[in-house]
Amino acid sequence: MSNYKLIYFDGRGFGKPARQLFHLAGVPFEDIRVSFEELMPGKQSESWLEMKEKMAFFTETPFGRLPVLTMDGFELAQSAAINRYLAKKFGYAGRDSEEEAWVDAIVDEFKDYMECLRPYIYGQRDGKSEEELKKIHDEVFVLVKNKFLNSVDKILKNNKSGYLVGNGLTWADLVVADHLHTLDNIKELDDVSWLNLKKYQEMIYSLPELKSHIYTRPKREM
Amino acid sequence: MSNYKLIYFDGRGFGKPARQLFHLAGVPFEDIRVSFEELMPGKQSESWLEMKEKMAFFTETPFGRLPVLTMDGFELAQSAAINRYLAKKFGYAGRDSEEEAWVDAIVDEFKDYMECLRPYIYGQRDGKSEEELKKIHDEVFVLVKNKFLNSVDKILKNNKSGYLVGNGLTWADLVVADHLHTLDNIKELDDVSWLNLKKYQEMIYSLPELKSHIYTRPKREM
Repeated sequence: MSNYKLIYFDGRGFGKPARQLFHLAGVPFEDIRVSFEELMPGKQSESWLEMKEKMAFFTETPFGRLPVLTMDGFELAQSAAINRYLAKKFGYAGRDSEEEAWVDAIVDEFKDYMECLRPYIYGQRDGKSEEELKKIHDEVFVLVKNKFLNSVDKILKNNKSGYLVGNGLTWADLVVADHLHTLDNIKELDDVSWLNLKKYQEMIYSLPELKSHIYTRPKREM
Repeated sequence: MSNYKLIYFDGRGFGKPARQLFHLAGVPFEDIRVSFEELMPGKQSESWLEMKEKMAFFTETPFGRLPVLTMDGFELAQSAAINRYLAKKFGYAGRDSEEEAWVDAIVDEFKDYMECLRPYIYGQRDGKSEEELKKIHDEVFVLVKNKFLNSVDKILKNNKSGYLVGNGLTWADLVVADHLHTLDNIKELDDVSWLNLKKYQEMIYSLPELKSHIYTRPKREM
């Protein structure tokens, strides 16, 4: 049996589907979590540097960052590459080249979308005023959110199976459902336009093999 | 024989490796190019909107943008997904799952790096002053460039084959060599630290099947 180790921050993020894929496949792995608090504003100076020094793997990782997956001497970096690699091994990457390509396309679109959300996400982190945040919310966040959600909604309606690609769960569903869950938590999925997406998210999260993981994971990942 | 159509802007960009992959594989394709001038600052208002209206495929593309690959009824969006799909078909995606994953990791790191270059790239487009541009160049561009180039240099030295992954050309080489060529053109690869990368770029571009394409493509892609 392969000896998988996943090293990542202790929290949600784009590397999280990797953990879900291990749970879905029932494959044991060493889940090495780096405390997320160390990265929070105002705390990241000395303690973060100290931690980096202590954790030699940071400077030794291929691109100097996380996540990193290791398996019996093989080492891999970059979230999407790790997710795709595990999804292929475990059967969640699509059934043929065309499905695999569409899973990739959806994940890439998601990544581009997250880049567009940066002004809003960083605005919150950087402690911008309520007024400034509202402006960024209304002029950036809502527009790019609507564009992305409409694309996803269209894909789901065209595909008809209930999943984004093909007739079964792929890691694109994990990435998108996780984000929809976040949007739902912050009341950004309440509009009646997103009812279909809300139902889709609930369907993905109610899959038995995923559900057991979701409800046992630490609170900060909820 | 498959009937490939690639619809993309007429110029360089992250969708360009797709064209190179067709040439490498000797596979004919319909190369539909949308004029890049229409997107230049000051020209994008009416004419660009007019063009979008004329070209119904824009609103009909999966994510409302380019590139798009079509093949006998199958349609695919997103640059990296298209490149990966073609690279797999034509044998430039890596020889096994581990090589494929590393090709993906390098391309993802490249995309993240390009995002970090945005302030510099947009600074030039937005007509910032020489002084502002110099500040962004020295404080952003140089740092992120050095970080990325050092990672690539380390990967090449560890791999020893002359290619980034495994023992042969992959689409990661196409993506990275293209960017190194751009850096060389703007004198950002002159430092002696990058001698190894310069030689690597020249080696990739001197591959006979790629060379014939490079020297026959329109000037704006040079």
